[in-house]
Amino acid sequence: MINKLIDKIKKTEAPIVVGLDPTMKFIPEHIKKKAFEEYGETLKGAAEAVWQYNKAIIDNIYDLIPAVKPQVAMYEQFGLEGMAAFQKTVDYCKEKDLVVIGDVKRGDIGSTSEAYAVGHLGQVKVGNTVCRGFDEDFVTVNPYLGSDGVKPFIKVCQEEKKGIFVLVKTSNPSSGEFQDRLVRTGTDAGNSQADVADRPLYEIVGEQVAAWGAECMGDSYSYVGAVVGATYPEQGRILRNIMPKAFILVPGYGAQGGKGADLVHFFNQDGLGAIVNSSRGIIAAYQQEQYAQYGAKNFADASRAAVIAMKEDIAGALAGRA
Amino acid sequence: MINKLIDKIKKTEAPIVVGLDPTMKFIPEHIKKKAFEEYGETLKGAAEAVWQYNKAIIDNIYDLIPAVKPQVAMYEQFGLEGMAAFQKTVDYCKEKDLVVIGDVKRGDIGSTSEAYAVGHLGQVKVGNTVCRGFDEDFVTVNPYLGSDGVKPFIKVCQEEKKGIFVLVKTSNPSSGEFQDRLVRTGTDAGNSQADVADRPLYEIVGEQVAAWGAECMGDSYSYVGAVVGATYPEQGRILRNIMPKAFILVPGYGAQGGKGADLVHFFNQDGLGAIVNSSRGIIAAYQQEQYAQYGAKNFADASRAAVIAMKEDIAGALAGRA
Repeated sequence: MINKLIDKIKKTEAPIVVGLDPTMKFIPEHIKKKAFEEYGETLKGAAEAVWQYNKAIIDNIYDLIPAVKPQVAMYEQFGLEGMAAFQKTVDYCKEKDLVVIGDVKRGDIGSTSEAYAVGHLGQVKVGNTVCRGFDEDFVTVNPYLGSDGVKPFIKVCQEEKKGIFVLVKTSNPSSGEFQDRLVRTGTDAGNSQADVADRPLYEIVGEQVAAWGAECMGDSYSYVGAVVGATYPEQGRILRNIMPKAFILVPGYGAQGGKGADLVHFFNQDGLGAIVNSSRGIIAAYQQEQYAQYGAKNFADASRAAVIAMKEDIAGALAGRA
Repeated sequence: MINKLIDKIKKTEAPIVVGLDPTMKFIPEHIKKKAFEEYGETLKGAAEAVWQYNKAIIDNIYDLIPAVKPQVAMYEQFGLEGMAAFQKTVDYCKEKDLVVIGDVKRGDIGSTSEAYAVGHLGQVKVGNTVCRGFDEDFVTVNPYLGSDGVKPFIKVCQEEKKGIFVLVKTSNPSSGEFQDRLVRTGTDAGNSQADVADRPLYEIVGEQVAAWGAECMGDSYSYVGAVVGATYPEQGRILRNIMPKAFILVPGYGAQGGKGADLVHFFNQDGLGAIVNSSRGIIAAYQQEQYAQYGAKNFADASRAAVIAMKEDIAGALAGRA
């Protein structure tokens, strides 16, 4: 699947993933009205609005991009009905030949991570029959529990030729609270010159991502990628070097403050190695002044225009580097 | 809800939570057979088997215990149908007046954590109507993203009088890979005597749990608790002191290797402050030699016997401490 992702990035010339993170305040009134008329102001009504909103956006941008990243929390907030909209969205995007990155940030002790891996990427045996659950192409994984929380995902990735992105340095303002802590490393721990070996935790996690990834390589990049926020370009540069074969999923572009010029260090010299996510910057483009002329009725056209602008911004930044 | 949890612990004299973590290999053949006859060897068939299995166990033990902890991964592995069984289990346990700890280990950037918090503990507005999603009483939260990933949960806890347990030191063998890393702290960072201030990451996270928890106190304990594995009793003792007002959810008892005697340091001198989880040790008791005489048909009776034995083990250990 990492090979497919790279092929599609080359074909679309867009190292871009669109975050399908619907919230009620992004969804245009006319879509909500219709959904509520049909199902009432219920979780089912909300889920229907989410689905219709997603579908219109996907239909209008699928030819421009390689991948989408539905954030499962935005569906989970509507309970079971929301999860049904998540499943519909995943299935529909796959029909459109988009690579689907389930932004689920799961991670637990070994046997539990195995269940998550099976439910989101793999297959589960029911009696003598093989069934599949949510069946995304990639998922995001939280590394706090260490190797035995991550390896069950890697095992399923090897079986299914799918992939994961492990959280290394997240895009949010307080990500440094634990991730930036300077930790003692190597044989220097305990001696008085230890500060030469002190390194932030995210680098240690990044090294593990590289080690885990060596176990399951695609043609040029590993099935094991990393999440590094666009809001931390300097850390992106360092992590790019620590994990040369890991594809980096880069959130935080646009609404969270990351800019095209911040992104160049996340890419390798082959022009690959990173895929940049934008969520509300694309799906709620019609609410921005820049795209206001489209109006709420034509929200999906505004999304298309925003994808094209993002593509140009990133291409320009990458061209400027060379 | 922390007050209710404590009341129920006192009433049952059992600082015990039963992990409802069903997997196909735990569920007796007769239950699977019936479910598959009705729904086939499908995800729906699996979900029906899970639900019938859970229900029988709950019916047989609910009067002995204060709380249950369904591990959502075990339901997610069966996709949407599994999530429907999760919802049924949560609802049924609440009908039985059990406190429900959703073991979901969620955590993300601020706006996304807010959606998780709303979906699992709070309420979401659909049009002008307030709806509720999965609606557990507590959830577990992963702290890797720092304060702005945790505070949205705390906000909902304050509104709803519900609670969270933040992962601090997990029970799995590789939990030390990142959690035990010695980090520089305080003003000593950078000077040559820095090792006096070096402390493991889990202590730093524990301090944050105490700080977050101070913002939302119940009568004697905070709405913000912590997860510390029974498999690490020495760390439990240290964390008990760092977070005196945090209730500690202690997994790892039984199948993972933790014993009653290991648990005493997780409790405060008031005999409270911890709740010990056992999952397969209770729900799959009938598969253990000790309870084999019950047979697969009477699996729920074996579970009841295992709860009583666990209660005695812990009570004995606590009595031995005094």
